[in-house]
Amino acid sequence: MIPIISIVGKSNSGKTTLIEKLVPELKSRGLKVGTIKHDVHGFELDQEGKDTWRHAQAGVDTVVISSPQKAACIKRVDAELTLDGLVCQFLSDMDIVLTEGYKRQDKPKIEIYRAELGEEPLCIDDETLIAVVSDTQTQLDAPHFGTQDIERLADFILKRFRSAGRKDVVQLFVNGRQIPMSKRFTQGIFQKTIRGMVESLKGTEGAKQVRIFIDEL
Amino acid sequence: MIPIISIVGKSNSGKTTLIEKLVPELKSRGLKVGTIKHDVHGFELDQEGKDTWRHAQAGVDTVVISSPQKAACIKRVDAELTLDGLVCQFLSDMDIVLTEGYKRQDKPKIEIYRAELGEEPLCIDDETLIAVVSDTQTQLDAPHFGTQDIERLADFILKRFRSAGRKDVVQLFVNGRQIPMSKRFTQGIFQKTIRGMVESLKGTEGAKQVRIFIDEL
Repeated sequence: MIPIISIVGKSNSGKTTLIEKLVPELKSRGLKVGTIKHDVHGFELDQEGKDTWRHAQAGVDTVVISSPQKAACIKRVDAELTLDGLVCQFLSDMDIVLTEGYKRQDKPKIEIYRAELGEEPLCIDDETLIAVVSDTQTQLDAPHFGTQDIERLADFILKRFRSAGRKDVVQLFVNGRQIPMSKRFTQGIFQKTIRGMVESLKGTEGAKQVRIFIDEL
Repeated sequence: MIPIISIVGKSNSGKTTLIEKLVPELKSRGLKVGTIKHDVHGFELDQEGKDTWRHAQAGVDTVVISSPQKAACIKRVDAELTLDGLVCQFLSDMDIVLTEGYKRQDKPKIEIYRAELGEEPLCIDDETLIAVVSDTQTQLDAPHFGTQDIERLADFILKRFRSAGRKDVVQLFVNGRQIPMSKRFTQGIFQKTIRGMVESLKGTEGAKQVRIFIDEL
């Protein structure tokens, strides 16, 4: 299972800064890290007049740009995707995913709090809160970490989410949501059954990476 | 199978313009259309200083931005993805995919040619050429369409790629490449076998959309 953790906090509390510090710390432990940023206003990634911008203006449903270093994709959606749906679509190859914001979804949360903002914390009585990063002690009922205490915070995260970085042999997403499967038994059954079916088809010699998409089970 | 068609032509021949015209024509026939643009120089989609730009600078492997209208993703890659790999990763929900450029890959090609450029066409003796869009007759051995003849070109494409828009029940990608499967027989076996395995797991009630990812078959 890919852990999804939401970094939440009031406006200007330092969510992006915390992510900037946490990402290299997690990466130094060998993890592939993905992030999700919520944009309520409707972002404009592409630049007017560029070829891909012209594709999008012509009504293309999904525009992809590919280079030797990066691949990017802009996809129209009928309704906003859930965090699970975004992970299924874009982040299934990550070891851990951090979200900036998304306080209303049910993922485990780390609140970043700064006393000088003079406001109450965000996650009072929030059962999904797992940690607080703050320059002061707060009323929140969760372990507190200083804003410079990033190494200990990363230790805490990895201890809590032991599945981070332990790649599953088989990942199963149902209606966009990852389903936990025991490694040895259930994943083994899926792997061996699918191997049998795939290897009996032409053009699958040397099959290593397999993706199966079913939209109407 | 999702058809992948490359729009190729020399510099300044009008590849983007042809895509701009072809996309609404294909969409008016009810197809979901994706495009892929090749960027050799390494594009910069995000804007300096924005939150997602800061995520990427911190070393994030995949950055996702989500809004009610769009979802976008910027992914670091170790090596440039193939067209098949890009379709598997980003475009499996499309009915047809057009690429701008990619003349060296083995996909069916439509060349756009303008006599006034005073150059030879690109696809001489290219067996993957299926059509030419040009303001003049050329030496190329493939059906010719005028630059305003977009409706007829779309007819030609849909006749040639009958699989466009006929959604497969089961899509199978092996090592990033889609494997053709007979609809009734092979797709049926995959669907029913996987249904049996999925429905025996907890948390899969109401399963409709299923995604299975295996990296080591």
